[in-house]
Amino acid sequence: MTNPKQEPIETIDGCVAAALHILGNKWTALLIRDLSSGAKRFSELQRSAVGISPRTLSQRLVDLESHTIIIKKLPLQSSTRAVYSLTKKGHDLLPILRDMADWGEKYPKSCG
Amino acid sequence: MTNPKQEPIETIDGCVAAALHILGNKWTALLIRDLSSGAKRFSELQRSAVGISPRTLSQRLVDLESHTIIIKKLPLQSSTRAVYSLTKKGHDLLPILRDMADWGEKYPKSCG
Repeated sequence: MTNPKQEPIETIDGCVAAALHILGNKWTALLIRDLSSGAKRFSELQRSAVGISPRTLSQRLVDLESHTIIIKKLPLQSSTRAVYSLTKKGHDLLPILRDMADWGEKYPKSCG
Repeated sequence: MTNPKQEPIETIDGCVAAALHILGNKWTALLIRDLSSGAKRFSELQRSAVGISPRTLSQRLVDLESHTIIIKKLPLQSSTRAVYSLTKKGHDLLPILRDMADWGEKYPKSCG
């Protein structure tokens, strides 16, 4: 069997590890999905990531920020809370998440 | 911000979890990459997955087999050892790995 594009996937070792670090975490994958529809507040993210603790949500957001997948913006008005949104780099992860969803749909027995 | 294709990624929760389970493991991702160029023996896989212990390699191969990502074939000749190869389902994971590698190359600071 040969690989479909006949190209070696030599860069997987180093670079895929970086993507896996982010997508391989259940919560960060969900947060990226949730932010794909637009900027959200902490409370909104907590509602859509059912079961996540505030502490874990904070940690995952810091993790995504440190990888420049998301950006946290603090509006000038003191009454308004911070909003989180995807960066270009974060948006570029969406096709991978979509491919994964397609794969999961194609092979439904793998879906849990 | 809106998502590029304007389609909801509603199936991520269940189905992506399945793909993440497989791709989110360093060794299984590497093994899929290694098998993309064709069927291999245990010893060949061990050589290319540098640092993997025989025990872990066995476990990961069983894991991939149980998800029907790979198939183990025992040749009839008793002198020949078993070979492992990707199934169609396993091959269909390659574009995801490739996208991940592309993403990692586009954002090299993320590569370790």
